[in-house]
Amino acid sequence: MTLTLDHLNTCDRDAFVTAVGDIFEHAPWVAERAIAARPYPTVTALHDAMMDVVRSAPRTEQLAFLRGHPELGGKVSRAGAMTADSVAEQGGLGLDQLSDEEFAHFERLNAAYGKKFGFPFIICVRRHTRDSILAAFERRGGNDVDAEFAAAIAEIGFITRLRLVGKVEGPGKPVTDGWLSTHVLDTARGVPAAGVRIELFEVGASARSALASTVTNADGRTDKPLLAGGPLRSGTYELQFHVGAYFAGQRPHPEERGRSPSVSKGEVALPYLDVVPIRFSVAEPESHYHVPLIVSPWSYTTYRGG
Amino acid sequence: MTLTLDHLNTCDRDAFVTAVGDIFEHAPWVAERAIAARPYPTVTALHDAMMDVVRSAPRTEQLAFLRGHPELGGKVSRAGAMTADSVAEQGGLGLDQLSDEEFAHFERLNAAYGKKFGFPFIICVRRHTRDSILAAFERRGGNDVDAEFAAAIAEIGFITRLRLVGKVEGPGKPVTDGWLSTHVLDTARGVPAAGVRIELFEVGASARSALASTVTNADGRTDKPLLAGGPLRSGTYELQFHVGAYFAGQRPHPEERGRSPSVSKGEVALPYLDVVPIRFSVAEPESHYHVPLIVSPWSYTTYRGG
Amino acid sequence: MTLTLDHLNTCDRDAFVTAVGDIFEHAPWVAERAIAARPYPTVTALHDAMMDVVRSAPRTEQLAFLRGHPELGGKVSRAGAMTADSVAEQGGLGLDQLSDEEFAHFERLNAAYGKKFGFPFIICVRRHTRDSILAAFERRGGNDVDAEFAAAIAEIGFITRLRLVGKVEGPGKPVTDGWLSTHVLDTARGVPAAGVRIELFEVGASARSALASTVTNADGRTDKPLLAGGPLRSGTYELQFHVGAYFAGQRPHPEERGRSPSVSKGEVALPYLDVVPIRFSVAEPESHYHVPLIVSPWSYTTYRGG
Amino acid sequence: MTLTLDHLNTCDRDAFVTAVGDIFEHAPWVAERAIAARPYPTVTALHDAMMDVVRSAPRTEQLAFLRGHPELGGKVSRAGAMTADSVAEQGGLGLDQLSDEEFAHFERLNAAYGKKFGFPFIICVRRHTRDSILAAFERRGGNDVDAEFAAAIAEIGFITRLRLVGKVEGPGKPVTDGWLSTHVLDTARGVPAAGVRIELFEVGASARSALASTVTNADGRTDKPLLAGGPLRSGTYELQFHVGAYFAGQRPHPEERGRSPSVSKGEVALPYLDVVPIRFSVAEPESHYHVPLIVSPWSYTTYRGG
Repeated sequence: MTLTLDHLNTCDRDAFVTAVGDIFEHAPWVAERAIAARPYPTVTALHDAMMDVVRSAPRTEQLAFLRGHPELGGKVSRAGAMTADSVAEQGGLGLDQLSDEEFAHFERLNAAYGKKFGFPFIICVRRHTRDSILAAFERRGGNDVDAEFAAAIAEIGFITRLRLVGKVEGPGKPVTDGWLSTHVLDTARGVPAAGVRIELFEVGASARSALASTVTNADGRTDKPLLAGGPLRSGTYELQFHVGAYFAGQRPHPEERGRSPSVSKGEVALPYLDVVPIRFSVAEPESHYHVPLIVSPWSYTTYRGG
Repeated sequence: MTLTLDHLNTCDRDAFVTAVGDIFEHAPWVAERAIAARPYPTVTALHDAMMDVVRSAPRTEQLAFLRGHPELGGKVSRAGAMTADSVAEQGGLGLDQLSDEEFAHFERLNAAYGKKFGFPFIICVRRHTRDSILAAFERRGGNDVDAEFAAAIAEIGFITRLRLVGKVEGPGKPVTDGWLSTHVLDTARGVPAAGVRIELFEVGASARSALASTVTNADGRTDKPLLAGGPLRSGTYELQFHVGAYFAGQRPHPEERGRSPSVSKGEVALPYLDVVPIRFSVAEPESHYHVPLIVSPWSYTTYRGG
Repeated sequence: MTLTLDHLNTCDRDAFVTAVGDIFEHAPWVAERAIAARPYPTVTALHDAMMDVVRSAPRTEQLAFLRGHPELGGKVSRAGAMTADSVAEQGGLGLDQLSDEEFAHFERLNAAYGKKFGFPFIICVRRHTRDSILAAFERRGGNDVDAEFAAAIAEIGFITRLRLVGKVEGPGKPVTDGWLSTHVLDTARGVPAAGVRIELFEVGASARSALASTVTNADGRTDKPLLAGGPLRSGTYELQFHVGAYFAGQRPHPEERGRSPSVSKGEVALPYLDVVPIRFSVAEPESHYHVPLIVSPWSYTTYRGG
Repeated sequence: MTLTLDHLNTCDRDAFVTAVGDIFEHAPWVAERAIAARPYPTVTALHDAMMDVVRSAPRTEQLAFLRGHPELGGKVSRAGAMTADSVAEQGGLGLDQLSDEEFAHFERLNAAYGKKFGFPFIICVRRHTRDSILAAFERRGGNDVDAEFAAAIAEIGFITRLRLVGKVEGPGKPVTDGWLSTHVLDTARGVPAAGVRIELFEVGASARSALASTVTNADGRTDKPLLAGGPLRSGTYELQFHVGAYFAGQRPHPEERGRSPSVSKGEVALPYLDVVPIRFSVAEPESHYHVPLIVSPWSYTTYRGG
């Protein structure tokens, strides 16, 4: 059954807490204290109110709240301790498949972090790649306690916003989705490039993961976004466009070529451009990244659109 | 002592054969028959004449000549049977470091080739990468005997042209050198991008080899060509431009950014472009490949110049 | 009252001829002969059938039909002999405002054309600029009689297709509209360029006409297409993008500039790019022309999209 | 006879003043006071020293010096009062061909300027177009007296630097030349575009002046810079590249075109790009402006290089 904002605005106190008391981890008091200010005109307003409850709570209560979160070491553990949601969420980028060395690295980071701050490292995993989690872990470890306290609360904002949006229907839902799209234009012919194979990889310190493989349609676009359906994960990606095969399929007449691509009998020309890689980073998980390729057999241009 | 074309045009027969009799492998008769038409106005004319000797020789003599060449299996052997020249020449791209599997692959190709054509596979190694040698091996294996005979003679033309050019000084030397250059322009500021780290890799089926690492000078160029001093090797390359570090070093004021690159307290922005890869193939070893990068923090253009 | 294809397929003969008998100039017989093959599944099929009637008519009947068309000299006359439709249609591009010299030019072309072919010059004015009409006039004057006969029939196809589409509602209407759009991306900031003034001109031998003036919205696009609502007119256009004012409005800090744009006290810098002109030609009146500008203060890229 | 720095450093006082006493208009005292600090290691050092003499002179002497300059109204007069040098210098951009209206405009500006500041408007004409002189006139008219006094001295620096460089040979001459170059690359074929007609115009409020017309050579460059031999003139320029004729000359096979450029029998296609205009401004007269065009039949990129 769908949970609506309308229902939340009009139901009794118990029903409200039952419905959204678990949005904040082990902290039904957040929901309880948000009841008084009902009705909320938008889902965003409800989430803002709940975050205000957290931010205005006494420091000791906040600290207990932070301490109620599981260790990321647990989350990414190979021991099976993750929730079904987390498994689904993290599986796509391989966070459940850490090597021994990577696992040990996480353990060391967790231990050092806990010792310094007194609460576990909290991050909205769905907005990050493995590499960006590690980068955030190391970077935030250098914060002073107040800055890191605020950073942890901010991450809880991201986590709970996603949970609320996933659970409650109603007007004014905050934007939590980003998406990645592309467009291939053939500037030798002045047409969209149809039938170009495109592969998308995550580029990380430890490995390359193939995330998508598709082919451009008659508009030079992909039928579906390359990534969509939630926040993008901060991190570095590489699109690979198979333009060599595309241009070879256009049957250029050899005598029209400006350059003779073959210099000895019996040689077959390597096209100047075959697989064009475009490497870029996502820093705004809730944004649209449009990464077009404007390409001829001898040149190309790309830029951030969107 | 330098050997000059002038000397070759005027010396006695024995001296001529002593000087250039070994240009064609185990075939001093090529030099002997080129004596009559002296003097040669250019080094190119001398080489053309020697190739004409080969092409007009009786088929049985040609065949014996081709059979006098060592197997490529020997050339790339790990057993140390290569000449000092070949070691120097092939070492740069790892042809002397084949894995067991690669070595076995070469052996199978050699055996099949020899059985079909009756002479060893001949190729001008200095114009090829390991990958393009393998590609040529497989491709030429599909030739009929006449086509492959001509292909082998053509390769001997490349090999001996390089040997002659390396040995004889004089007017009208044929062009045997290619070179690779780049240029980085910063279109956010309208200036050459100085201090950009650039790395060059060979991109192959089996491995990535780092070939060069350099930094742009005040003109946005490299002080020396990225590759030079002989024919380029046919194959696929990747230039990597470290533009993220370059733009970070320009200290942009955060408030001037069109996009807010950071979305939560405690996060450091990943630049949209960090390492820009440009992958391209060389098909004309004696040409100039100019591969510029026209770049802002959010876009770039490249094209084949030169 | 709207005329529907459904009605045309089911009404009696007289009503059909009354409704669409004037689509072909002074030639109700075209409609009459198209009645038998009813019903037509699409508006396109109806038009194709009527054109087949024209093409299969005896040559003498075709010739009489062509001769029934007014002279273009009359159409573009300053004497007020044009129909209200033609005035509305041609006024936008100044065809009703020919100078004495231009008018005399048209008269000479008409006289020569009529003498050679025996029928008036026919062209679908709505698909042309004044310049492209003149170019077609001169070019088609060089045709032989058969080729020009076919060219005139083809133009009648364009004219009547537009008339039919404007008059009859129903499924399968042929595409008769083209449109022109643009998009401005700021590659110095990685954002759509909002607030850029754009002007559109027709560029002709005789004059420059301003066709549109608009400003980009938050997406870097224009709220409405720059041209739409019918076929584009074949001809040459120039878009002018006021990027200097746009970038000046971004308040760049002088010390961040790569180049010092000012060289003496008391000088104000001229921006390197102020008004960027993009000149292009339309050859396919029923197509989408998307002409984007990817621009930084020191560089730009454009291409035909759409 | 060539005048050398070496001679100036060693000759007697009278000879020195005779040689360079007229560099500063009616002010031999500048040269006289620069004698003591001889020898000067570079021409630049000599000029710097002379400017220091001007800057350290008493205000009344400076004022008399400024007043010794002719009115720009005289300089640009149609009455023939200009020196031969000025005629040669200004003739290229039409400063000697002001219309009555323009002349009156200059007269009004002169009168207002003289009334406000008490000395004539001084500007280094060779670094300016007519439009940029007018812009400077209007802009500097808004200065306060001290700022304008400094601006006038700075202009005298530009004027005398050019005179000194033109007169004296020797080491360390200051850079007073700018130049304009271009390069056309054909990205449909991956080659320099040879044989492309290029025209250069000054773009001004009052008129368009053709400054150069040339054709690219085999390297896609022009044999000589488009502008050179002195400072560039601040102002706005337009390069026009006749790429339509170039690509038409490459004889593309119609069946290879991605888009069918012709839609009716008897029509000849207008190429999408015919004459490509690139409009840019020069703000640094002593710099190199490299304005390349990277072009296919359906796209192009330009940027400030150099």
